[in-house]
Formats: sequence, structure tokens, C-alpha cells
Amino acid sequence: MLKLFQYNWLIREEWFDWCEKIPSDELLKERTGGVKSILGTLFHIVDVEYSWILILQGKPDFQEPFENYRSLSKIRELSAQFHPTVAEYLADWSEEKDKQILNAPWGEQYTHGEIIRHIIAHEIHHIGQLSVWARELDKEPISATLFGKGLF
Amino acid sequence: MLKLFQYNWLIREEWFDWCEKIPSDELLKERTGGVKSILGTLFHIVDVEYSWILILQGKPDFQEPFENYRSLSKIRELSAQFHPTVAEYLADWSEEKDKQILNAPWGEQYTHGEIIRHIIAHEIHHIGQLSVWARELDKEPISATLFGKGLF
Repeated sequence: MLKLFQYNWLIREEWFDWCEKIPSDELLKERTGGVKSILGTLFHIVDVEYSWILILQGKPDFQEPFENYRSLSKIRELSAQFHPTVAEYLADWSEEKDKQILNAPWGEQYTHGEIIRHIIAHEIHHIGQLSVWARELDKEPISATLFGKGLF
Repeated sequence: MLKLFQYNWLIREEWFDWCEKIPSDELLKERTGGVKSILGTLFHIVDVEYSWILILQGKPDFQEPFENYRSLSKIRELSAQFHPTVAEYLADWSEEKDKQILNAPWGEQYTHGEIIRHIIAHEIHHIGQLSVWARELDKEPISATLFGKGLF
């Protein structure tokens, strides 16, 4: 499971680098689908990953709105700031945890494994949306391949 | 790992159902990004999943072009036809297989686990692209959530 997180983190960094070459009005421009903008999507990915990891630890989730982070550098910093918490949580992953039940504060029940897989799929899905918007901008998107990334 | 395949299969069926309500010219229309059309994307997902599973079994991959399958019903049938082979292969998955080396016919080396994770990410990524095109068509896309699907 960790390998798919590592994949997501590498791809996320490649998209951050990609964004460095795009004017900020294009990064913030409202687009069709998903969370409506390139930076909004990257913020949402960072937010959702971290929030679920906090919830898995029985802590309150991250509540700040995108409006506080409307720049590439702020979102990169946020991603870097949250990363150790996420990576530490996952370093401790086990078959046992996979099946462990979480009683979420809003009354739903999940297994930890279900949440972990949701986080993985969530990021890949939104990155797919970025790839369409990149082509609409006439730019080559970051390749989604998992090969050649030194993960194995 | 199997859970993420099951997630992909459920989402794929939901997209096939979604496509049933869309005129075929819209499904075939050239769009920006990815593999350029809705049906082309679904064909590509089915093709890539099956081809990698064949390669993992030391067999030649699926070589037919999209041009032979330019309708929703043909792609649904193809997906259903390939599914047992894919599902049987994965039912037999193990930690041991995860690390096993594949010497691909084109000279590259992969671990089986690397290929399996690539297939998972590949489908989710392309489904993310469909979700943008759905909004461009003014239609609600299939939700990408992993929750509430009876997978756990």
C-alpha cells in the first residue's frame, strides 16, 4: 500500500514542478470539473490526505479553506509540512491495521484499510483531471506511469 | 491490492451504465487530453489491464486496435470477456508474487507488484479524465469514492 502513496507523492512533486512554469492566473483559473482549478485540486489532495490521516489517529481534521492557500508556494509548503505526519503513520502500517474499525466522529464506521485505499484512489483520480486541464493549456501533463520511479 | 481492482471494476461498470445514456457520437467525439474520447478511454483501460495480466502470465498481449471496438456494447462485452482471466490471476496473488521479477519480451525487468500497482493507478487516472469530460458534457460524473461500495 505504501508504494502507491510513494507513487502519489512523487507524481505530486512533479506536478508542483510543472506548475512552477505556469502563470498563477492559469493555476487559479476556474475550469470545468473536479475542484475547478489546478491549485484548488492540489490543495484538495493535500488537505484530504492529511485530514484522513488525522481522523485515523483520532484527531480533528484540517479545516482551513483553500482561500488561505491560493498560491503554489503556500500549497507546496503545506504539503511538505503535512508529509512527515502522513509518512510516519504509514511507516507503521500492518495487516492488522488494515482490518481495524474506525468509528468516525460523524457516526460512520470504516476500516482503516478502506480509508487508506480511498486516499490513494482520491489523489490519482484528481491528478487525472489535472492531465486534461494541462492539455487544454497546450502543455504536456506529467506522465502517470508508475514505472521507472525507483519504487521497487 | 485486490480491493483496489474491485473498486476499479465497480467504477468501470458505473461508467458503462453512465455511457448508456449518452449519444454514441458524444462517446466517440474527439476530446482534449488522455486517449481523446470517452469510449477510447474505456477501451484503453480494458486493453491495458488485460494485456499486462497476459504479460504477467508469459503470454502475448492483446493487440487489437480501438477501431475494432468503436461501440459501448462491444467494449462492455470485451471487458466482461477479459474479466475472468484478470480476476483469476489476482485471486492467486501473494506477497511472494509481489516481489517476483518479470523479464518482459522487450527487455525490461519489472516486479509483478510494480505491474499490478501500475494497472490500478492507470485505470483510476484515466477515469479522472472521464470525470472532466462528463462535466464538459454538463453531466454528473460517476463518484470516485471508494466508500459505500461493500468492498470491506
